[in-house]
Amino acid sequence: MTESPATRPLTLHEDRALPADPVTRPIAREIYQEIKGLPIVSMHGHVPVEWFADDTPFPDPAQLLVVPDHYLLRMIVSQGRYTLADLGVPTLDGSAVTETDPRTIWRRFCENWKAFRGTPTRFWMEHELVTIFGITQRPSAQTADAIYDQIAAEIATPGFRPRNLLDRFAIETIGTTDPAWASLEHHTALAAQGYGERILPTFRPDPVLHLDNPTFAHDVLATGAAAGVTVSDYATYLDALRAQRLRFKAAGGTATDHGHLVADTTPLPDDDAARLFDAAFTGRPVTAAQVSAFAAHMLFQMAAMAADDGLVMQIHPGVERGHSRTMTARYGADKGYDIPFAVEYTRALRPMLEAFGHHPNFRTIVFTLDEDVYSRELAPLAGVYPAMRLGAPWWFIDSPEAMRRFRETATETAGFLNLSGFVDDTRAFCSIPARHDLARRIDAGYLGRLVAEHRLDLDEAVDTAIDLTYRLPKLAYEAR
Amino acid sequence: MTESPATRPLTLHEDRALPADPVTRPIAREIYQEIKGLPIVSMHGHVPVEWFADDTPFPDPAQLLVVPDHYLLRMIVSQGRYTLADLGVPTLDGSAVTETDPRTIWRRFCENWKAFRGTPTRFWMEHELVTIFGITQRPSAQTADAIYDQIAAEIATPGFRPRNLLDRFAIETIGTTDPAWASLEHHTALAAQGYGERILPTFRPDPVLHLDNPTFAHDVLATGAAAGVTVSDYATYLDALRAQRLRFKAAGGTATDHGHLVADTTPLPDDDAARLFDAAFTGRPVTAAQVSAFAAHMLFQMAAMAADDGLVMQIHPGVERGHSRTMTARYGADKGYDIPFAVEYTRALRPMLEAFGHHPNFRTIVFTLDEDVYSRELAPLAGVYPAMRLGAPWWFIDSPEAMRRFRETATETAGFLNLSGFVDDTRAFCSIPARHDLARRIDAGYLGRLVAEHRLDLDEAVDTAIDLTYRLPKLAYEAR
Amino acid sequence: MTESPATRPLTLHEDRALPADPVTRPIAREIYQEIKGLPIVSMHGHVPVEWFADDTPFPDPAQLLVVPDHYLLRMIVSQGRYTLADLGVPTLDGSAVTETDPRTIWRRFCENWKAFRGTPTRFWMEHELVTIFGITQRPSAQTADAIYDQIAAEIATPGFRPRNLLDRFAIETIGTTDPAWASLEHHTALAAQGYGERILPTFRPDPVLHLDNPTFAHDVLATGAAAGVTVSDYATYLDALRAQRLRFKAAGGTATDHGHLVADTTPLPDDDAARLFDAAFTGRPVTAAQVSAFAAHMLFQMAAMAADDGLVMQIHPGVERGHSRTMTARYGADKGYDIPFAVEYTRALRPMLEAFGHHPNFRTIVFTLDEDVYSRELAPLAGVYPAMRLGAPWWFIDSPEAMRRFRETATETAGFLNLSGFVDDTRAFCSIPARHDLARRIDAGYLGRLVAEHRLDLDEAVDTAIDLTYRLPKLAYEAR
Repeated sequence: MTESPATRPLTLHEDRALPADPVTRPIAREIYQEIKGLPIVSMHGHVPVEWFADDTPFPDPAQLLVVPDHYLLRMIVSQGRYTLADLGVPTLDGSAVTETDPRTIWRRFCENWKAFRGTPTRFWMEHELVTIFGITQRPSAQTADAIYDQIAAEIATPGFRPRNLLDRFAIETIGTTDPAWASLEHHTALAAQGYGERILPTFRPDPVLHLDNPTFAHDVLATGAAAGVTVSDYATYLDALRAQRLRFKAAGGTATDHGHLVADTTPLPDDDAARLFDAAFTGRPVTAAQVSAFAAHMLFQMAAMAADDGLVMQIHPGVERGHSRTMTARYGADKGYDIPFAVEYTRALRPMLEAFGHHPNFRTIVFTLDEDVYSRELAPLAGVYPAMRLGAPWWFIDSPEAMRRFRETATETAGFLNLSGFVDDTRAFCSIPARHDLARRIDAGYLGRLVAEHRLDLDEAVDTAIDLTYRLPKLAYEAR
Repeated sequence: MTESPATRPLTLHEDRALPADPVTRPIAREIYQEIKGLPIVSMHGHVPVEWFADDTPFPDPAQLLVVPDHYLLRMIVSQGRYTLADLGVPTLDGSAVTETDPRTIWRRFCENWKAFRGTPTRFWMEHELVTIFGITQRPSAQTADAIYDQIAAEIATPGFRPRNLLDRFAIETIGTTDPAWASLEHHTALAAQGYGERILPTFRPDPVLHLDNPTFAHDVLATGAAAGVTVSDYATYLDALRAQRLRFKAAGGTATDHGHLVADTTPLPDDDAARLFDAAFTGRPVTAAQVSAFAAHMLFQMAAMAADDGLVMQIHPGVERGHSRTMTARYGADKGYDIPFAVEYTRALRPMLEAFGHHPNFRTIVFTLDEDVYSRELAPLAGVYPAMRLGAPWWFIDSPEAMRRFRETATETAGFLNLSGFVDDTRAFCSIPARHDLARRIDAGYLGRLVAEHRLDLDEAVDTAIDLTYRLPKLAYEAR
Repeated sequence: MTESPATRPLTLHEDRALPADPVTRPIAREIYQEIKGLPIVSMHGHVPVEWFADDTPFPDPAQLLVVPDHYLLRMIVSQGRYTLADLGVPTLDGSAVTETDPRTIWRRFCENWKAFRGTPTRFWMEHELVTIFGITQRPSAQTADAIYDQIAAEIATPGFRPRNLLDRFAIETIGTTDPAWASLEHHTALAAQGYGERILPTFRPDPVLHLDNPTFAHDVLATGAAAGVTVSDYATYLDALRAQRLRFKAAGGTATDHGHLVADTTPLPDDDAARLFDAAFTGRPVTAAQVSAFAAHMLFQMAAMAADDGLVMQIHPGVERGHSRTMTARYGADKGYDIPFAVEYTRALRPMLEAFGHHPNFRTIVFTLDEDVYSRELAPLAGVYPAMRLGAPWWFIDSPEAMRRFRETATETAGFLNLSGFVDDTRAFCSIPARHDLARRIDAGYLGRLVAEHRLDLDEAVDTAIDLTYRLPKLAYEAR
């Protein structure tokens, strides 16, 4: 094969994603050298705990790298040629023909390589292909098969089992995300095998805090059952949540996570909350306004419980999930149709921060997909309330330009020490090292610029880079 | 005349608007070289079709360069010394003395040259003065007359007729904006003279979709008359719109354009829509809320028709037109008093995108004046729905810094292939080459930085630059 | 003491805060050289007039540099170890033990030096420590005492009296902020001593424009008393405001300042306004909506009065004051718990700008803490209405990155001549030179980049730098 655009070599430049200007780059490079080898602290993400508990091999390149990655799927779908089913995503009701040949799925991804130019997926995937699989050619229709074979061969090796990858990726700690009713059996089993401090559960109770969940009563009862509490009313519902939070903590968990639509934390009078709970629990109708009010109330209750049990409270609002109801009905959640919208924080978080923002046992990490609020709302809040940390750029904005903007807009008011440090939040396991590497490069570039502009000394910049990479996420997610 | 600040030479540096840093600039220059000579595809704008149909000479420098350019007018008005009438804009009722001497108007512009520092008008006007008219001195009170004479002499040459300028400016295609009731006679005449694929009409039905238009019934009837449909009710109203869209398509049109206040696309039940139409059509009162609801309903209907006839649907919301009602009453629309405001898209576009976002025959190009929504809403939407393209920065944000921010905030989530490429949207004909040249330089700079930061290879950057300049606008505006 | 990170030398690089890239920096340096020595025009701030009237020495380093600076206080509080009381802020009711030893307070600040990395406080404080006090070591627990002693010694010198500092800091004019009922005795006394054109009062009537002020009637009566008007109803209330504005003008004042929650300027019918005034004035209840409506009405009235008396009208909306009601009840206002939120301007300012936006005697300077509105709303408004100037970045966004963003987002639509130039707005007197120096460096950097990108000639950049530093604030705040 001669070298054409489609078969050009794929290489990683050692200075990639560092600033171009010749004064800043050497400083950034010097800072990056000090952090590139630090262990990965990955306290929030969506890798299934079963992968580690069972430690089974990954089936094939498509199931490993394409099908579970909604960043990849959405971009290919947007090009109009392939549907989700063509990319291996099964329909919930089996109504469409789903492509099952992994090689065909992989080819469709490689054909669309051009569409990823300028996106973080391109950056992460290049990193994965080169450093994990030793690929040396640009993905394209022409090179798809050869790349497929090389990845498939690597996957088949014993070193590619999930637990071995933890070592290979230098992941010191990884948090999973688990439902409120989780039995935690996998975490228990892993703990018995010495992984108790390395693979941690995270308590994610969204379905039992939202009264419009169609299986609300079922999920509440399941949560109670897991916790050993018979739920019959609002009081026992709170008991079940409290008890199950403690079970997560006993299993090594240090945090909870809350994906509410908005950031509202306004509590209701207890009687009102109890009445709303009873209505939904017994299958009576609740209005959309009541659903929102109860969700806000329960976010406040979660903060109250956190001030008691010391679990760190993560808040991730502002996404319209399943924007295309047709596609969501066909393929299910998390397939690329989640779209952010503007969310207010200053007033929404006020009840929680007024009540617990100075509580020595409370810690909340607040995330956003709306970059506007960094300088206007979240940095000013994190810059005064001791209990609050500002989370790293998340999801769509976990990308080179957006991470730079985050540093530029949040740091001046929040400082560095009121941040969570880097958090990857991915379900694409093999992308974790790439994501952390990119974040480290962007941080080195920003700090390098502060040094080049004589706004920070080099020793301080290196110390701060280590904070952002390693110390701050450890501190931010430490149970209190 | 000796050289004073007011009479310094006016020159264009070949590297203008390219990044300053010495690593990125040569790469950007290399990319720019590959696109600077490409033909101009100008699919959306406000140059009157009569100029081409009649091919009459332009009257004078003031009428060519000052009076029709609301960017220019507003900046001079803001300085407080001259009113719009002083700058040659007639009052609607003749109530004020309007300056009619073109040389005086031109002098007033030149006196205010300083006020344009740092604005895109300065950049465009310099480009026009040097490359089109060969001006060599900075505009100022001292140089105004000499410059005026030189422009006037150039305008008087046969080469300066509108059709000759199309060739001189290398404009391959230009879209005009035409009312729903347009007879399209000029386009028909131009087509007969071989301009049918070069000068295209665009269907702009805002006045017949907004029930508070004071001449609503008249405009609807005129639309019907143009289409050969007698409108008597909601059903025949839709028929007239459908028929007239097809006439535009037959006359070479590929697109429609919609300047609604907000982006809402929520359809009404047909009966409700019919009742609202009847009320307005027969002169009965409608509320502001009904006007908004009907406009949203009709935006949805336009999408439905587009999915049938394949005309590309442009949406340009978010401007409070005629912010100063006094000035608008005195001088009319489009005189610099239009002010943007925040507009929501995620929920507003949902009905349309759920219904037609995967339709193979539907294409919508969505614009904004609110930069916040690029990363939060529009890039995530364009990055998954095959039917949607994200339009180029428009109007106030069609400027060097804002175009850079657009690349930085939209690309990571939308990629390049979900964009419309550059669209100029101007009524200042002579500024078209300058606007395209500036956009090409900014794109070359952004792509150059991606190369300098090893995030893209140079061959890919050049290919993408050609996409953004030429291929993407051709593709985006292709009737389906 | 050997050199450890905690005792490293503290130095100021002559190129600090200039762009790093080697092409732009020398140009920026050249521009900065032309403005660094210009006198300071500080037309808006919160330094108490008593300091100048009494010209008493400052008590100690903590009272000078820590206790009055809410930027400093909030960052230390956010670290969770010290409360405001620990930092010398007294509780309103004496309920907590307040640290009174200035050396201990100073140590607590120095211990937290790391927390300020990347913040403007770090930049300003370094500037102050080095240029005013000759400090040569980095603040830290180890160096705190030595630094304290050196500052204390400097403070004790006669040259450190407030009036001497005006000369030392090259402050040509400084505006104070004074309540509507101010007797202006200090300003009168200062005028008698030749400071009448140097130290100017600013009329700040917020408490008498907001009906929910618990001491509304008292404050209104006090305003009347100061003005020599007996207030008994709405008409005499307006008379008192008019008269007191004229007293401010006679005392050298050129401006008013308005810290409303939002920017609404919608007038009420006079009868409605009179009824609302009467209710609050006689202690009858008013609703939150009525409070807002009356505040908006009075903002419009202030504009009407400004068009009469020529005082420049500053508007500073968009801050939720005292976000933690507990901490505000304990320590009072302005202690770091003020948090911005999104504020709309396009529609809010419309009534005022339609009525007075072209009035030759009216001038309004509009500020924001919400960076989103620069390009979307405020620059487009300032770019057409002759009466409006866009204020400099304020409070949280008076920082290197945010000032750069301001230049990049506001300039292209507003130009430079529709801006107020730099305004510091501080109560930390010693930080004034640092703040102006930083702004000059950022402006030099931005203008240097325009030159490096061939978008502006060097002579124009220098001229504009002088405008932004000196001429524009003089012009913007000139009484009409």
